Amino acid sequence: MPISDPPDDDGVRVFQASGRTPLSDVALDQLFRAARTYPAWLDIPVGDDTLRQIYDLMKWGPTSGNLCPARIVFVRSVAAKERLRPALSPGNVEKVMTAPATAIIAYDLKFYEKQPTLAPHNPGIRATFAASPALVEPTAFRNSSLQGAYFILAARALGLDCGPMSGFDNAKVDEEFFAAGKPSGAEDQEFIAAGHYKSNFLCNIGYGDPARMRPRQPRLAFGEVCSIL
Amino acid sequence: MPISDPPDDDGVRVFQASGRTPLSDVALDQLFRAARTYPAWLDIPVGDDTLRQIYDLMKWGPTSGNLCPARIVFVRSVAAKERLRPALSPGNVEKVMTAPATAIIAYDLKFYEKQPTLAPHNPGIRATFAASPALVEPTAFRNSSLQGAYFILAARALGLDCGPMSGFDNAKVDEEFFAAGKPSGAEDQEFIAAGHYKSNFLCNIGYGDPARMRPRQPRLAFGEVCSIL
Repeated sequence: MPISDPPDDDGVRVFQASGRTPLSDVALDQLFRAARTYPAWLDIPVGDDTLRQIYDLMKWGPTSGNLCPARIVFVRSVAAKERLRPALSPGNVEKVMTAPATAIIAYDLKFYEKQPTLAPHNPGIRATFAASPALVEPTAFRNSSLQGAYFILAARALGLDCGPMSGFDNAKVDEEFFAAGKPSGAEDQEFIAAGHYKSNFLCNIGYGDPARMRPRQPRLAFGEVCSIL
Repeated sequence: MPISDPPDDDGVRVFQASGRTPLSDVALDQLFRAARTYPAWLDIPVGDDTLRQIYDLMKWGPTSGNLCPARIVFVRSVAAKERLRPALSPGNVEKVMTAPATAIIAYDLKFYEKQPTLAPHNPGIRATFAASPALVEPTAFRNSSLQGAYFILAARALGLDCGPMSGFDNAKVDEEFFAAGKPSGAEDQEFIAAGHYKSNFLCNIGYGDPARMRPRQPRLAFGEVCSIL
């Protein structure tokens, strides 16, 4: 059934017709409109339960073929932070070292090995990717980036603040945390790096210090970004 | 201030200490836990106002250096859908042709030309990227993917459903919608393609038909994805 062009200015009518409800303005503010990237943090720790709650929300976000390629290392202890320090851009060192936790959002280049769990109805996925190395990297990069954004919004939905960052040396992080043959230090969690994890971006999490917030940067207008055909 | 390891099981205490509140279970369900990728749609149109509302939320999501590289074409008219058809994988044709709207989530390889608007305090951005072509593509791809995920969650926050898809021929879409020198058909919106936009993924939007939903696919356990160091 092709859809004919709807009339303009029908947003309210559409919501009523569908029976669906937008989230409250308070919720939309918390997720998007009032949420900010924080450079400095209140001295409130982020516990294991909170980290699990973030994952238990973000994991539901859609990925291509349910491939779920993201892998996450929560760098929280002083010792682990020191392992991260040499990879950071100078401007990001203090942000990371003072953050209650820093997530390394990474991806697994062998994500397709999880097909028996994630897509048991589609056994061909494994062979397709194993035979198509050129497909693996963009698929993992795109979908782990999506999952990184789900992570940010899941954390905000739980009342946390985020500070995502690309300003670091990916190769150093990969060598230090994901090097071939070196365990990640979390063997008891079935999370063994074997040289096939790659870092995507970092994300500090905690409770941002409103007293050290910067002015908000502008965004592009609808017509500079979007067209309707 | 280095943070010492917090005790376990302190999620509730942390929320209280911060004064922040998680969203309601209803909201968390709508965004993550009960949200689904819909293959079929109710016959309810999505109007211009709704598309603008999605953008006016997603635009606030963080990108590296506030670069905001995503560009979006909302393919909604019958004529525009027909332009998209030849690029679609066979399994995605009906999903797209029957969706109230299909967003082409794309990115602008000349995103840095928007620096005067987006990062007026940081004029060096423009020169950095103009001089570093190898930085441009991964930066645009990562950040437009993040913005694509913000798009999905903004739509859900407004009560819409999404059906994101990678199953299409990116080169065909880029040729048809973003070809060098060809206007996109939206000149009045200052949105002219000039061969420097690339498609990332597609996302159907509308109100999903619950009667044609598929069984939910499983997700990985925390310990398969995450480690805490």
